[in-house]
Amino acid sequence: MSAIPEDFVRKTAQLSADITQPFPKSRKIYVSGSRSDVRVPMREISQAETHTSDGVEINPPITVYDTSGPYSDPEVEIDLLAGLPALRSPWIEERSDTEQLAGPTSAFGQKRAADPELAKLRFEHIRAPRRAKAGSNVSQMHYARRGIITPEMEFIAIRENCRLQELRNDPRYAALLRQHRGESMGAQIPDEITPEFVRDEVARGRAIIPANINHPELEPMIIGRNFRVKINTNIGNSAVTSSIEEEVEKLVWSCRWGGDTLMDLSTGKNIHETREWILRNSPVPIGTVPIYQALEKVDGKAEDLTWELFKDTLIEQAEQGVDYFTIHAGVLLRYVPLTAERVTGIVSRGGSIMAKWCLAHHEENFLYTHFEEICEIMKAYDVSFSLGDGLRPGSIADANDAAQFAELETLGELTKIAWEHDVQVMIEGPGHIPLHWVKENVDKELVDCFEAPFYTLGPLVTDIAPGYDHITSGIGAANIGWYGTAMLCYVTPKEHLGLPNKADVREGIITYKISAHAADLAKGFPGAQLRDNALSKARFEFRWEDQFNLGLDPERAREFHDETLPKDSHKVAHFCSMCGPHFCSMKITQDVRDYAKAQQGMQEKAIEFRKGGAKIYREV
Amino acid sequence: MSAIPEDFVRKTAQLSADITQPFPKSRKIYVSGSRSDVRVPMREISQAETHTSDGVEINPPITVYDTSGPYSDPEVEIDLLAGLPALRSPWIEERSDTEQLAGPTSAFGQKRAADPELAKLRFEHIRAPRRAKAGSNVSQMHYARRGIITPEMEFIAIRENCRLQELRNDPRYAALLRQHRGESMGAQIPDEITPEFVRDEVARGRAIIPANINHPELEPMIIGRNFRVKINTNIGNSAVTSSIEEEVEKLVWSCRWGGDTLMDLSTGKNIHETREWILRNSPVPIGTVPIYQALEKVDGKAEDLTWELFKDTLIEQAEQGVDYFTIHAGVLLRYVPLTAERVTGIVSRGGSIMAKWCLAHHEENFLYTHFEEICEIMKAYDVSFSLGDGLRPGSIADANDAAQFAELETLGELTKIAWEHDVQVMIEGPGHIPLHWVKENVDKELVDCFEAPFYTLGPLVTDIAPGYDHITSGIGAANIGWYGTAMLCYVTPKEHLGLPNKADVREGIITYKISAHAADLAKGFPGAQLRDNALSKARFEFRWEDQFNLGLDPERAREFHDETLPKDSHKVAHFCSMCGPHFCSMKITQDVRDYAKAQQGMQEKAIEFRKGGAKIYREV
Repeated sequence: MSAIPEDFVRKTAQLSADITQPFPKSRKIYVSGSRSDVRVPMREISQAETHTSDGVEINPPITVYDTSGPYSDPEVEIDLLAGLPALRSPWIEERSDTEQLAGPTSAFGQKRAADPELAKLRFEHIRAPRRAKAGSNVSQMHYARRGIITPEMEFIAIRENCRLQELRNDPRYAALLRQHRGESMGAQIPDEITPEFVRDEVARGRAIIPANINHPELEPMIIGRNFRVKINTNIGNSAVTSSIEEEVEKLVWSCRWGGDTLMDLSTGKNIHETREWILRNSPVPIGTVPIYQALEKVDGKAEDLTWELFKDTLIEQAEQGVDYFTIHAGVLLRYVPLTAERVTGIVSRGGSIMAKWCLAHHEENFLYTHFEEICEIMKAYDVSFSLGDGLRPGSIADANDAAQFAELETLGELTKIAWEHDVQVMIEGPGHIPLHWVKENVDKELVDCFEAPFYTLGPLVTDIAPGYDHITSGIGAANIGWYGTAMLCYVTPKEHLGLPNKADVREGIITYKISAHAADLAKGFPGAQLRDNALSKARFEFRWEDQFNLGLDPERAREFHDETLPKDSHKVAHFCSMCGPHFCSMKITQDVRDYAKAQQGMQEKAIEFRKGGAKIYREV
Repeated sequence: MSAIPEDFVRKTAQLSADITQPFPKSRKIYVSGSRSDVRVPMREISQAETHTSDGVEINPPITVYDTSGPYSDPEVEIDLLAGLPALRSPWIEERSDTEQLAGPTSAFGQKRAADPELAKLRFEHIRAPRRAKAGSNVSQMHYARRGIITPEMEFIAIRENCRLQELRNDPRYAALLRQHRGESMGAQIPDEITPEFVRDEVARGRAIIPANINHPELEPMIIGRNFRVKINTNIGNSAVTSSIEEEVEKLVWSCRWGGDTLMDLSTGKNIHETREWILRNSPVPIGTVPIYQALEKVDGKAEDLTWELFKDTLIEQAEQGVDYFTIHAGVLLRYVPLTAERVTGIVSRGGSIMAKWCLAHHEENFLYTHFEEICEIMKAYDVSFSLGDGLRPGSIADANDAAQFAELETLGELTKIAWEHDVQVMIEGPGHIPLHWVKENVDKELVDCFEAPFYTLGPLVTDIAPGYDHITSGIGAANIGWYGTAMLCYVTPKEHLGLPNKADVREGIITYKISAHAADLAKGFPGAQLRDNALSKARFEFRWEDQFNLGLDPERAREFHDETLPKDSHKVAHFCSMCGPHFCSMKITQDVRDYAKAQQGMQEKAIEFRKGGAKIYREV
């Protein structure tokens, strides 16, 4: 990591305007639940009227799922130095199964807290961590299995529905709500997501709610195949580039464009402090790969890793509020030789660290042998497992091979153990997979891991396009999402080549929002087609502004349009630059429609005449 | 269209360097056929050696399919004013079934040729057109059905194979040629594409060779589900932007990045002259939508169109050398009302023109009623049909509806008629289709149209991402290609918003090369995985230059890499900016592999010792 910038604090206190300004014609709304502190944020996009020869038609506002957090609410004063409001704190406290600790209990956490050198870098308002009371289990799965519907579950139910029940009763939405029957591929999505359905899905392990009790700032969300397909983004510094303040800006940027969760993959020496900044300012669940930090602590020597050091790292991060941990507990010693003949060996960083450790000690992976102890930590803070796919294929050549599937079976075995502890689990997946082998991955995961939510990177469906791997993987992601994957880990255009900048992150997120939404449409998620219908209607009616505003990236759409037709008058013009003013298929179609209507009118008149006994028109 | 630029001729005579410079480490090669004038161009990418602890390993050059034409051959002197060499002229002449006409026979072609005003704009070396002798049929399908293997067919067989048989006999390629078994979805792809196989596929209508006898400059290619999936690009001016010289540059640009065919969709008043420039400089087949020009001739009034005027347009364009015509003969009068309740009506320009004509006259589509006469023209020049999908859906809401499928059935009926004339046919398809309904489109087309090659636009799998429709459609394209579509019509990021510029065209093409290649991999096209394997091996071995050069867009890959690590030394470095120098999974994996090898070495030594009677090592 680069040195601490001199002006660090001042800079992070001010987010760039392009990161927080509301999208055009969008306003933040909150839908209340059964209690006043369940206020679920959504974004409402207003539309212009349609003017036709028949008069004026109202186009109702469109409500969309909103991951941007308080940053897009002009009513909320953002202070990065103070962090976001802790909206879940009352819910956690009233469950009375946690206690506030005096301070961090991990050795490393204590050391960092005591280091005066770090004062300048440190987030100023660190809360003392909470932990389950002795003997308690504070996981959402534990509550769910005892029949308790938590405020988190109710929040999620409202969020997933996106006001669909309300809109169904509003005649303005009747046509817009038409939707094709989906092909769910075995998913069982109800017509309305109820809090009880959320509870039931979490109880049976088919969905998870990543929500560490030490991350009360987050707006609860759910990952499961019977819910909207989610996307994850990654940020992280590295030894070569980036700094803490960039990471916080990237977090807000990621939420703005639609990232549902975020993994902090930093590997520098101040990652503890970076993480605190990120967590305190994050409205979305944060995941990490704790082995990265553990490796830092032993100066990058994998063979020097120990269970004790790793355990301390888990506690350190759990007490900061990390919501899910990637744990590569399925990389077993006996699987490592299965990768020797691969074209690209082991490409997962965590996987290769553990493989190296196993070989160096000729011992079984300590994450596997200490798995039950890890579960004890997870349930004390409600950290969810993201069981890592350390042996995922790094090339088309290595797809669906013995190493990959052997690990997957072990992840299933570990899922069962975690569930015995009521600890939430999702399963990580590929990688690089040719298109025709994508489905096998999901089918096998659902069987081997008992329908625990699948969380996949891509997959890339070809290796031949470095610089475009958001696309090679977005194709795989749409398919794997349709087949049943619950969350898609994004890939940016810089994959395999370098660290993504802001533009790359935006490009990667939008690509994955497309893939996730395409999957929702294919599965037939209730209400998913509303936005498509509204946008297409706007497009057909030449409501250019509405077409931009209803899209995933209104700014880009407007920019592209304005490159050819910059004038404001062009945005109400009934033509676009593709065909020019005298030749437009949409205009012609409108003429056809008017003509058809007139024809029908004549037919109706003919029928009326006949009814009255007259026989002026002959029926064709 | 904008006025003729003053410096038109001078400018088009000089192509920009970025359009013609060879890709790094690439050289043009020609593979000869059974006769000396069958010389099939390919691109060969050389690779660096791999240096390991065991010594030096040679990485053999990789041959790839090449659409760039003579432009990428430094040995060929390009003169846009003279046009490309007419490589097919001897083949056409020696068949002795055509005659050279005195000049254009269409009224419009004659008028343009005689207009002195156009001298400045006109291509200088216009050949008199050829036409089939009376009673002759010069279509490739006609030859195929009579058992004749044309030089075009042999050229294509060599091209599709990309030297695979030769490489299979070269031990350097043994590992690189490993490939997964595909899931062909009913395609019947042989292990080697022979000239006889090409002939047979063309004869039975399952593939087409678009190759007008008046376009002898083209390098023959084939469109069919048992061959590599192809992509088409579109160019075209419009009343608002662009000019002729831009169009010619776009053509060369399109070929450079991998466009297999190109549709000229120009709609301005000098399209006849633009088209001549494009054809004379095009190494790829050119398609048009003749109704666009016909509409220009009646000042944009669809109802004024007549069969006679349209027929003259067909002859005009056929005599210039257009290789395939989109003909919207399936838009029947009775289908038009089926679109009235759609969200986006009729979005095909050709479709809406014909619908308007049908309604205005209350008569059947004249393209349908005169279809046999159109066939007569097609077979006199060997123009292929691209039967247009005038009623394709313009939104997810309108997908797979009665209008779309009714038209498809009529296209099947027309296919049969065309085949009775030995005229080549492909079928155009959607549009906007949700992911789970994509396959139905292919399945229905294969049945209704008797396996005539399917040629689809996208489909876009969601409507909500204006500005990213290359991606929404690239997802659909990969899937529809896998299911059996033979050619994918590209979509640029500007779709729905404006005219694509050079950057957009490149982005659209690369996206579609990805989709087409993903489909080839999924179908198991022989040798398709070679490039993936080579690139992944290069990636794993930190051969950065090779990784860039083997990719679809070497320039972009290099740029992205250099943004973070600009120094030359970094391109031989065993790390990248994602993880930094001390932490790299690929490096660790290499360590693991070395370790595993050492372990195995010890085991082997143990075996040797045992063989020799010694018992130093115990077996585990």
